[in-house]
Amino acid sequence: MTALGLIAGGGALPRAVAQAARASGRDVFVVALIGSVTDDWVQSFPHEYLSPGEPGRVIKALTGAGAREVLLCGRVDRPRFNEMKLDAKGVLLLPRAIAAAKQGDDALLRFIVGICEDAGFTAVSVAQAAPALVCGEGVLGKVSPGDDDRADIATAFRIVRALGALDVGQGAVVCDGLVLAVEAAEGTDAMLGRVPSLRESLRGTAAKPRGVLAKALKSTQDAKTDMPVVGVETVRNAHAAHLSGIALEAGKSLVLDRAAVAAEADRLGLFVIGMTL
Amino acid sequence: MTALGLIAGGGALPRAVAQAARASGRDVFVVALIGSVTDDWVQSFPHEYLSPGEPGRVIKALTGAGAREVLLCGRVDRPRFNEMKLDAKGVLLLPRAIAAAKQGDDALLRFIVGICEDAGFTAVSVAQAAPALVCGEGVLGKVSPGDDDRADIATAFRIVRALGALDVGQGAVVCDGLVLAVEAAEGTDAMLGRVPSLRESLRGTAAKPRGVLAKALKSTQDAKTDMPVVGVETVRNAHAAHLSGIALEAGKSLVLDRAAVAAEADRLGLFVIGMTL
Repeated sequence: MTALGLIAGGGALPRAVAQAARASGRDVFVVALIGSVTDDWVQSFPHEYLSPGEPGRVIKALTGAGAREVLLCGRVDRPRFNEMKLDAKGVLLLPRAIAAAKQGDDALLRFIVGICEDAGFTAVSVAQAAPALVCGEGVLGKVSPGDDDRADIATAFRIVRALGALDVGQGAVVCDGLVLAVEAAEGTDAMLGRVPSLRESLRGTAAKPRGVLAKALKSTQDAKTDMPVVGVETVRNAHAAHLSGIALEAGKSLVLDRAAVAAEADRLGLFVIGMTL
Repeated sequence: MTALGLIAGGGALPRAVAQAARASGRDVFVVALIGSVTDDWVQSFPHEYLSPGEPGRVIKALTGAGAREVLLCGRVDRPRFNEMKLDAKGVLLLPRAIAAAKQGDDALLRFIVGICEDAGFTAVSVAQAAPALVCGEGVLGKVSPGDDDRADIATAFRIVRALGALDVGQGAVVCDGLVLAVEAAEGTDAMLGRVPSLRESLRGTAAKPRGVLAKALKSTQDAKTDMPVVGVETVRNAHAAHLSGIALEAGKSLVLDRAAVAAEADRLGLFVIGMTL
């Protein structure tokens, strides 16, 4: 198997992918995007720090590392194009990059992946590069959803799928049949963060958690770049929102550090469950 | 025409209804719900302050005022049942009131209206009691939506209708085709309040407003109690969210103080438009 070329943005996903790929016996070369990768996990992998404005050097680095497959993942904040390091190819591509960035993260990521594909690399998904991260079916820890939770899960998945078909978002919070919050551009953590500010009669409390977070792949999304992700932080945020647990679409969502997620869910008394829709 | 019996909760709607009904030549008697009505507008109408726990006295007051039609509107916070004044009928009905309150505002309001109907009153809608408040077709002020805005309005109404069919919410914010925020239990103002915290590339700015708020009646809602409402505050909040304007479902939403809304929209450069869906 050839080396995996991992173009890493911010957040916990790139590290988890790199570790899972290495654990499966594969060589990994990391291109750490300057400004997006802010911690030092890349030190434990062969790597190079490069700017998103240096596609020529990115391609050269990946080629030099013997990578044939490439995966871009993690959060890439909109670059400050006027401050960004540019190589010759970057100067040429800059107008298209700026146009892509204006359409949001997803478009910018697809643009960068497209450059690699044009250079002959094969773009792979997280599920292909690190299948161990893909959420399976069943509960992750020791806590299982009750009957009320299962009813809320069914409602929440129905909402999320309808929203996904409209390209709105990946997540929703439902409590006793009432839709408390729907995720649009703000992201899952911000959505969970506003639940405690709702009227107490509608939601759970620290003493009596109620309601579920469900996440599923948008039908308009590409599983290569956009799978919903859950990690230890998500479990903590769901707990802070006084929820009973988290439901994920099995096979189409990712769990970062399954053991840690299961342990945190057990410690906080939440369920985390993968379900086939 | 008999007097209108207005059971008033909090917020700006009850006052607007009372004033519009009086302006149309009708007598109005106000039952101001203790704990919900916090300003003194009721002083300019015949009125009585009563607790939601005193349905016997509410019915007696309405009867004494010669009201045959009754309208409950405004925000009714979940009462603290253990601190609430109760009359004999209230004691009898308390268990059902508590059960209704647990299902949220709407259920509690419907419960109170139901008690009045059981006592022989006719429940009327805001549109019936104060037709002047119903949003018509066309722009309210001098600003009209541009082509980009019209595309966003169409998307936003599509989202809101889909959400409404799922009983999720009444509102959505769309900017350049991207759904920035969807209203669930938090309400329109809270939804607008989080737009400025989104990444700047996705939304409007003070210098260049973009995007629209659309509101429409949920298909699961009863037009008698639940029409979407827009007032001067909504215009200010939409402006603070750097939006271009607001679109409402004509005939099925309410505008509080049309002249003030139009003036504020003109002053801030936003459009407010009623459209038939």
